[in-house]
Amino acid sequence: MSDFSRLSLNSATTKMWTLAEVVEGCVAAGIPAIGPWRDRVAEAGLDKAGRLIRDAELRVSSLCRGGFLTAPDAEGQAAALADNRAAILEAAALGANDLFLVVGGLAPGEKDVVSARQRVADRLGDLVPFAAENGVRLVLEPLHPMYAADRALISTLGQALDLASPFDTASVGVAVDTFHVWWDPELKAQIERAGRENRIASYQVCDFTMPIAADPLLSRGYMGDGVVDFGTIGTWVRDAGYTGDIEVEIFNQDIWNTDGNTVIATVKERYAELVLPFA
Amino acid sequence: MSDFSRLSLNSATTKMWTLAEVVEGCVAAGIPAIGPWRDRVAEAGLDKAGRLIRDAELRVSSLCRGGFLTAPDAEGQAAALADNRAAILEAAALGANDLFLVVGGLAPGEKDVVSARQRVADRLGDLVPFAAENGVRLVLEPLHPMYAADRALISTLGQALDLASPFDTASVGVAVDTFHVWWDPELKAQIERAGRENRIASYQVCDFTMPIAADPLLSRGYMGDGVVDFGTIGTWVRDAGYTGDIEVEIFNQDIWNTDGNTVIATVKERYAELVLPFA
Repeated sequence: MSDFSRLSLNSATTKMWTLAEVVEGCVAAGIPAIGPWRDRVAEAGLDKAGRLIRDAELRVSSLCRGGFLTAPDAEGQAAALADNRAAILEAAALGANDLFLVVGGLAPGEKDVVSARQRVADRLGDLVPFAAENGVRLVLEPLHPMYAADRALISTLGQALDLASPFDTASVGVAVDTFHVWWDPELKAQIERAGRENRIASYQVCDFTMPIAADPLLSRGYMGDGVVDFGTIGTWVRDAGYTGDIEVEIFNQDIWNTDGNTVIATVKERYAELVLPFA
Repeated sequence: MSDFSRLSLNSATTKMWTLAEVVEGCVAAGIPAIGPWRDRVAEAGLDKAGRLIRDAELRVSSLCRGGFLTAPDAEGQAAALADNRAAILEAAALGANDLFLVVGGLAPGEKDVVSARQRVADRLGDLVPFAAENGVRLVLEPLHPMYAADRALISTLGQALDLASPFDTASVGVAVDTFHVWWDPELKAQIERAGRENRIASYQVCDFTMPIAADPLLSRGYMGDGVVDFGTIGTWVRDAGYTGDIEVEIFNQDIWNTDGNTVIATVKERYAELVLPFA
């Protein structure tokens, strides 16, 4: 019998399910933690979402997601801060210690990545005190560089750690998502650094499938279906001292078209085979 | 009148043209240098290709390309070395000082990027003496991380410089291709380092268009059509001391479907507007 005590299901993996269905699916499968997306929480209503999760005695490994902090104008920045403050409050209400931030890409027509990254740092500084007051850690997620232009100008773990460094470790952490970082030649060194600096807030697993899907957002796959070396990366993350939840987050049209309980069964099988031995 | 004295046309930009047509197109447009691909050279025949280029008094800014050095077995390694030695001889015969290497990705079914990268380093060590004997510099090209699995396990300029460092600067250099490296948070520092270490062998310009094309190899565009900040990157490359040819290499189905002379006219126009002021 495999030990699923650290496994968490990100709700995007069973994207067609309502939050209630995800909760029910996790309970039925003996998965003790959930990583909900805000749209599914909003659909259920925040109070009811919290109740559903608490009644099921699930941990909330993270809330996805805040971010999109790169607006260049005052109005856009105010809107981004308001949305992220709302996300922080939602995380607190759900009992999620960690709020993922996908920090955003270039503004429309913009080409100045240096300035856009500075705006991420500035908005992060704006948000940290509010996050700290509410007991929520902001989790900087480096995304694969193919998403740099439109989704996240944080492309490497090292860069995420640099951005996090001015802030308290209780308020800003980083995520290691195998899909996004497997290719990074600095990955081992930066995971070690993340451990030393006490920044690893989340370890997410999913595979990088080839060829890349026509919609590159959907090129994620079950562990084992792509090129990611879960043994090596998992060992690095374990040796860096991470003992938290391991969240499975897969965006994949074929998986979304599959019955959620079947998806969960495959997730558990692949987790037991490829992730757990190194956790 | 703009100064096109450093402009080079990579033959892949006018992919439908034979080498003779590319040469003719460059001469007609006053472009003084060419970066041929080996398939077009082979089609023309090496001797005739050399003659065509010499008779037209074009410089050969580079030959594309060798590489694919990651075979795990002795037979595959021997084949890769033989092919790369042939490419070195072709470069020498054409008067190309620089041979681009796209180093290759994971072997079929392989997931161990650390070992695969070590094989790149090992094969590079095998090739350098032969390249040096023939007066050819091997140019390590970092490719965008979306090609790490299947084309190039060199994903950043810093990694290329690390790989180059054991070898003489006359024998191993690096390429800065805006398409591949624009997103790198370390780019400024690594271009400065490449200048200090005398490793910049080539500066290639082309844009990164969004959304990414369904075939991600074809997501390249004319300068100005994507997200690349040519002013900033061009200034970094210039300040690093690079004074060589600036090669335009665009893979894009729409551009390939356009008449070559029209493509060249657009290349010149964009080069004059976006690249030349910072060269």
